[in-house]
Amino acid sequence: MAGSSFGNIFRVTTWGESHGPALGVVVDGCPAGLTLQEEDIQRYLDRRRPGQSKITTARSEADQVEILSGIFEGRTTGTPISLLVRNTSQISRDYSEIASCYRPGHADYSYDQKYGFRDYRGGGRSSGRETIGRVAAGAIACKILGQLGIEVCAYTRSIGPISIDPSRFEAAAISETRTAMPDRDADTQAVAYLEEAIKRLDSVGGVMECRATGVPAGIGDPVFRKLDALLAQAVMSIGAVKAVEIGDGTTVTTRYGSENNDNFCIKQGQVAKTTNHAGGILGGISDGSDILIRAHVKPTPSIYASQQTVDQSGQEISLQIKGRHDPIIVPRAVVVLECMTAITLLDALLSNLCCRMDSLEAFYRKPELLRK
Amino acid sequence: MAGSSFGNIFRVTTWGESHGPALGVVVDGCPAGLTLQEEDIQRYLDRRRPGQSKITTARSEADQVEILSGIFEGRTTGTPISLLVRNTSQISRDYSEIASCYRPGHADYSYDQKYGFRDYRGGGRSSGRETIGRVAAGAIACKILGQLGIEVCAYTRSIGPISIDPSRFEAAAISETRTAMPDRDADTQAVAYLEEAIKRLDSVGGVMECRATGVPAGIGDPVFRKLDALLAQAVMSIGAVKAVEIGDGTTVTTRYGSENNDNFCIKQGQVAKTTNHAGGILGGISDGSDILIRAHVKPTPSIYASQQTVDQSGQEISLQIKGRHDPIIVPRAVVVLECMTAITLLDALLSNLCCRMDSLEAFYRKPELLRK
Amino acid sequence: MAGSSFGNIFRVTTWGESHGPALGVVVDGCPAGLTLQEEDIQRYLDRRRPGQSKITTARSEADQVEILSGIFEGRTTGTPISLLVRNTSQISRDYSEIASCYRPGHADYSYDQKYGFRDYRGGGRSSGRETIGRVAAGAIACKILGQLGIEVCAYTRSIGPISIDPSRFEAAAISETRTAMPDRDADTQAVAYLEEAIKRLDSVGGVMECRATGVPAGIGDPVFRKLDALLAQAVMSIGAVKAVEIGDGTTVTTRYGSENNDNFCIKQGQVAKTTNHAGGILGGISDGSDILIRAHVKPTPSIYASQQTVDQSGQEISLQIKGRHDPIIVPRAVVVLECMTAITLLDALLSNLCCRMDSLEAFYRKPELLRK
Amino acid sequence: MAGSSFGNIFRVTTWGESHGPALGVVVDGCPAGLTLQEEDIQRYLDRRRPGQSKITTARSEADQVEILSGIFEGRTTGTPISLLVRNTSQISRDYSEIASCYRPGHADYSYDQKYGFRDYRGGGRSSGRETIGRVAAGAIACKILGQLGIEVCAYTRSIGPISIDPSRFEAAAISETRTAMPDRDADTQAVAYLEEAIKRLDSVGGVMECRATGVPAGIGDPVFRKLDALLAQAVMSIGAVKAVEIGDGTTVTTRYGSENNDNFCIKQGQVAKTTNHAGGILGGISDGSDILIRAHVKPTPSIYASQQTVDQSGQEISLQIKGRHDPIIVPRAVVVLECMTAITLLDALLSNLCCRMDSLEAFYRKPELLRK
Repeated sequence: MAGSSFGNIFRVTTWGESHGPALGVVVDGCPAGLTLQEEDIQRYLDRRRPGQSKITTARSEADQVEILSGIFEGRTTGTPISLLVRNTSQISRDYSEIASCYRPGHADYSYDQKYGFRDYRGGGRSSGRETIGRVAAGAIACKILGQLGIEVCAYTRSIGPISIDPSRFEAAAISETRTAMPDRDADTQAVAYLEEAIKRLDSVGGVMECRATGVPAGIGDPVFRKLDALLAQAVMSIGAVKAVEIGDGTTVTTRYGSENNDNFCIKQGQVAKTTNHAGGILGGISDGSDILIRAHVKPTPSIYASQQTVDQSGQEISLQIKGRHDPIIVPRAVVVLECMTAITLLDALLSNLCCRMDSLEAFYRKPELLRK
Repeated sequence: MAGSSFGNIFRVTTWGESHGPALGVVVDGCPAGLTLQEEDIQRYLDRRRPGQSKITTARSEADQVEILSGIFEGRTTGTPISLLVRNTSQISRDYSEIASCYRPGHADYSYDQKYGFRDYRGGGRSSGRETIGRVAAGAIACKILGQLGIEVCAYTRSIGPISIDPSRFEAAAISETRTAMPDRDADTQAVAYLEEAIKRLDSVGGVMECRATGVPAGIGDPVFRKLDALLAQAVMSIGAVKAVEIGDGTTVTTRYGSENNDNFCIKQGQVAKTTNHAGGILGGISDGSDILIRAHVKPTPSIYASQQTVDQSGQEISLQIKGRHDPIIVPRAVVVLECMTAITLLDALLSNLCCRMDSLEAFYRKPELLRK
Repeated sequence: MAGSSFGNIFRVTTWGESHGPALGVVVDGCPAGLTLQEEDIQRYLDRRRPGQSKITTARSEADQVEILSGIFEGRTTGTPISLLVRNTSQISRDYSEIASCYRPGHADYSYDQKYGFRDYRGGGRSSGRETIGRVAAGAIACKILGQLGIEVCAYTRSIGPISIDPSRFEAAAISETRTAMPDRDADTQAVAYLEEAIKRLDSVGGVMECRATGVPAGIGDPVFRKLDALLAQAVMSIGAVKAVEIGDGTTVTTRYGSENNDNFCIKQGQVAKTTNHAGGILGGISDGSDILIRAHVKPTPSIYASQQTVDQSGQEISLQIKGRHDPIIVPRAVVVLECMTAITLLDALLSNLCCRMDSLEAFYRKPELLRK
Repeated sequence: MAGSSFGNIFRVTTWGESHGPALGVVVDGCPAGLTLQEEDIQRYLDRRRPGQSKITTARSEADQVEILSGIFEGRTTGTPISLLVRNTSQISRDYSEIASCYRPGHADYSYDQKYGFRDYRGGGRSSGRETIGRVAAGAIACKILGQLGIEVCAYTRSIGPISIDPSRFEAAAISETRTAMPDRDADTQAVAYLEEAIKRLDSVGGVMECRATGVPAGIGDPVFRKLDALLAQAVMSIGAVKAVEIGDGTTVTTRYGSENNDNFCIKQGQVAKTTNHAGGILGGISDGSDILIRAHVKPTPSIYASQQTVDQSGQEISLQIKGRHDPIIVPRAVVVLECMTAITLLDALLSNLCCRMDSLEAFYRKPELLRK
């Protein structure tokens, strides 16, 4: 079944494997008239690029994006935008070891069971490089959201036991720290923690968080396409994510209703909420407050320490993984979270144009109101 | 946008409001030849029926299901199954109070912002009664899964601070306790906790959990239709759910990779895992272990205590909600979690038939192998 | 696979069989705020109702529609609209004859091959009564289009060899003639032709045509969702249709390009075309001219004359069909064509709101422009 | 709206413009384990390649395909297959003339109305080069169908007034004649007719036909996803097609039911039909006979003769189109028809695996039956 597409109006279709010739994405349904160039996309790809510090994989890829369609004279035409990134640093080595065995925590066994065989080179389609297409498409979504006054910002909230202190939140630190933490003290501690884990040939997990500000109230749909439900799909679909929370998330279960309800109030003549336990979504539809989502990421399954597993012939074996791996997934995945959030929000914003008779009538009765 | 459908092959479309004439569901794509009668569905609806104990709403609805199509001589025909439940206990009272104000924690404000107005009677489409269609469809999915040797079982894991003790897990207790807890001691404590909350005119939250056993390895699709991603959408789309976990969920973030990876081993000649931190899904595809999912549910937003809010004219007001409400959502939502899990699994199982050339060739070259 | 849904934003899901308890439709994605009552829908259902003259089946059904959801205080709420029509005139007779044999021209054999068995009563899901759901949904689409200044009008163009004379086109005659022909002379001849066929225990075919006026230029999408491609699917999906034409259709193949191209010109200060061979669609997108579509309908496969066929045990047999059948499908199918055209156009019009950055920005930057 | 995808399980997403850097397609949902290499695809692309004779455009493109993903060790992995064709012969000339005016019969005006502007170079996305992606994907579908014993074959049936004589049908001639006619006499006449049209600076239309043999009975779905309805969408979506017929198509309307019904009989112990007026589809589901579909194609809208039209400033002007154009679309579009038919059939065949409980149970109870 076709599982590589996401979104209904702004539809993203990704493709590519870790060690194939290239990876990419087709973005169909992008509104016409957006100014777009390769730099807009490259900026986001650079944030997930490997080889940038000692806490990321040693694989070095330029990850240069090429726009192959959908742009004319610097603007989107409304037709599909095809984006391509060539793989250049696939190391041509002997994969026979992982070819015939199942790495713990990886998709090797489940892919084999599904498809009968698998592209084992670097994890194939299940590699983290699959997210290149997501980030390239998300860069476009972020640009559009920006023009609507919506900002989406993701960062690392914790690494292992080390969490940021929200009172020290510093946005600039997200791009400047190696951990993508908005708190330089926490970053320092987290790097030490990571270095310790690397020495132990081990890996660690963490939590990433994403905040969307400026989302108008009324976005999302009832029942199965609730905004939080689509965000949950979008975020849980990122490899290694094992839990997704909206707003106060798991902590709501031990509260009383009187504590957890956000009271409405009037601020500057507008309806607002005194608190935002709900994370900006009520009944699956945005309420005008910040949207807050958290993703819990497991430790990188590839570790250098020896592990017990089985091979394809059914023998129990001891495995020592070689290759180049990140000791933690979170810092490079933060931009993926940001991009998946942006794609989901944009698709819901586009859907929302069609939900009222008054909008529909105005659009077709007085199109000049809406046309430059 | 059409948000009331879920599933690609086994597609469920629900409809109906809390105080409209009826609610229901159309199940399209159900395989032909399944023995099905109203009792199969009624049994599940009865588990979510209100009015069954003092810890649920006083609204009493028989919730009798009627099959309107798709069945011939006791078997499904492969064409859409339409299921209908009439509302009978809508109390015809004065709704003017909530008609003009925004209840904290509810979808009133966000619906108004989206649609320009709303059906305020009992919450309209955002009511918990919306789940009748999900449960009716899920009953069919559960029956099919059962015939494939797959059991899906959901229960209450905690209510407020009171959790079950897994070592005392007793399946029979799920249907016999008022809390749907598989632990009678925890149930006793939880009921006391709930009664205290009711006295305080307040409400409480909790955690529900669902386990699917017998799911073969290889189910689910890479990237956006990962099995855990679709489960996350399915479960987060249940009203009041604020967090979703797969397997060990949030706890993985403080582990090392060497602790969190499940080693593969051979058990009774089959590939198995020594642990199941992953919750039965690796790379978005089932690995043959039990699938485990948890949903964190907020306290019922409707409480009898007075709350501060605003009305449609922009005035801050004090609101005291009347009507009939559950002091906790969890016990009646457990069957909804079970049903959404079953629908998601069945859809993925059906998709999976199409993913290999050898299956496709066998099916068309030797159809007699597959036909009774 | 779920084949009972149509449309992406305005999504229609039909259900029901000829001799089941009821038939119906769920319309999801209807814009909020449309004034709608049962009479709006009943008016369209009455046009396809059987038992109205001697050239239609003797089965008499009131086909009274009931609205079960999605309307509050006389307006659509934006949530799914569920519409129900009870079957009342199923004659409880012995179906054993057609139960065990394959009627020529019918879906009996192909359904058996697909599903392993079938609901043979009155054709089950493949009955013409399946169109009740289409017409009920189409009535809503027509009402919305009407409020946008778009009129959709279908009629009978020919019955057997008897065609209307376009120079005598009289719109009032469509609803007043038994044939739904907009030409009373052609109607008289066609009725005589039909009566002759009835005497011979035979049936006849015909052509129906649909014109949509007022469709703005720019509706439809490139490539696979071209407006004419979606219209072709919509119309070919009506039972018994064997060919679909847009504009001048089949006649274009013997023309030169210089004859077939429609020249652009300026009329009343607007871009227009001097001719409309294209039927209002260029490159899959509306050009502002009338949209014209034709459907070629085969003779009713149920005839009273004896036919050669086979039974389920593989014996060749002679079959004489009993029951109540229309000697021609066209007059009652005209409203189905109109409704399918309207649903397709409306879905494309809704999609179109999302295709430009300037509309998107205006919508979110100045929502007051679009809100009553 | 995303209009560049087709198919539900075997999902094809095309992208690219006439004068952009490249065109391509992503094929998601292709079953794993198919042997596939670039030659399999190139063979089909070569059939639509321009510059092959004096009756096709002078634009010469190698149209070399590159496989970028989804293949490992010569076999499909079940993950998306990305195919790329670079544009190499875009002539960099002055497009200012057509940039500012609306060519008759082309999509210039409708695109401008939809998107606010357009990529006017060579027609942009509305160019016939868009079909490269369809053909590349269709080559894969054809290969799979071939392995199931299904052959799909399209050819030219008529050019202007010159039709093939079915009694002289010679399959080899399809690839050997310049017209793709399976009748060398008709080809000779048609070439003469075409040369005359070229001299007159004009263009001509024609009819193409496609036959699928070996399709088992039972393929397709009721109501909106009828096999003929999806074929109609698929075929009408090919640029310049103005009518689609199934089986005897338009001719059925003047027949009596007794003439048009295909009687069932027993041939070699199997259910068969004595005739095939229905074109292999009854009730939207295949009946085991050959599937026959015809597409009526308008004359190429680009002609060298002078035409009247308007420009973007609203002036009526006289236009003489330059550039390189086919005087007829049909011979190069035949392979597109074949490919769209194959994609539609394959998607329906895949869907069909999921429609019966007995198949589902066999698949999961005895997977070894279906696995090599």
